[in-house]
Amino acid sequence: MTTPMEMTTLTEAECLALLSTEPVGRLVFTENALPAIRPVNFVLDGRDVVIRTTADSWARRVADTVVAFEVDHIVPADHSGWSVVLLGTATVLTDIDALVRVTDFRHRPWAPGPRDRYLLIRTGEISGRRLSLAPA
Amino acid sequence: MTTPMEMTTLTEAECLALLSTEPVGRLVFTENALPAIRPVNFVLDGRDVVIRTTADSWARRVADTVVAFEVDHIVPADHSGWSVVLLGTATVLTDIDALVRVTDFRHRPWAPGPRDRYLLIRTGEISGRRLSLAPA
Repeated sequence: MTTPMEMTTLTEAECLALLSTEPVGRLVFTENALPAIRPVNFVLDGRDVVIRTTADSWARRVADTVVAFEVDHIVPADHSGWSVVLLGTATVLTDIDALVRVTDFRHRPWAPGPRDRYLLIRTGEISGRRLSLAPA
Repeated sequence: MTTPMEMTTLTEAECLALLSTEPVGRLVFTENALPAIRPVNFVLDGRDVVIRTTADSWARRVADTVVAFEVDHIVPADHSGWSVVLLGTATVLTDIDALVRVTDFRHRPWAPGPRDRYLLIRTGEISGRRLSLAPA
């Protein structure tokens, strides 16, 4: 017998609350006309996502394109979890006011090497789903 | 002071070994000309990825397109983790021999509802990276 599971749609407020609980998300973009995905640590700036990265990297290639950003939390033990996906335009921040605003002491890059570029995803649509045990 | 971290590239054998340790991965595809991502539980069939899904879903739309599939394991406590990404062509399995071959008692869909379609990702390129504390 399979335990009954339930899939529910999350509100935007629920999505934003969940986004702020995880340090790492996955940036989804197109590279050489192929789908690409890369885990990155991030912080939220309101509804927007801020990522620190290197100057000469994929970040330059995703600038000014539409990207997806996904954050999830999966619990293998009971097959529950949630996933939030946002769509937005990636921008390399160069404006000093914007840089000061998004600078956050919590936000240190995990990957090694200098990471002196800030990539901002200006969020458009946000959607999320939760998979959980159905109430008895 | 920041703890020195190290990014290493994984071999294909290491990638495949790591893929088999996680039950859930993320299917990356294009939907209405926009990047899309969806967590799914999966099993490996050699180098290929098998996903069970519904008949009338996004699976039909990704059929015969190139997709990415990402699996990772992140440890927030020490900022370590790994990520494996494969690129491949998604196929809806209809051949009975292939269906029998990929049917696996471990592979039950987590999401509710009938999931009677098998989506196979025929893997091309596999790449992976590990982020860890640098040796002292």
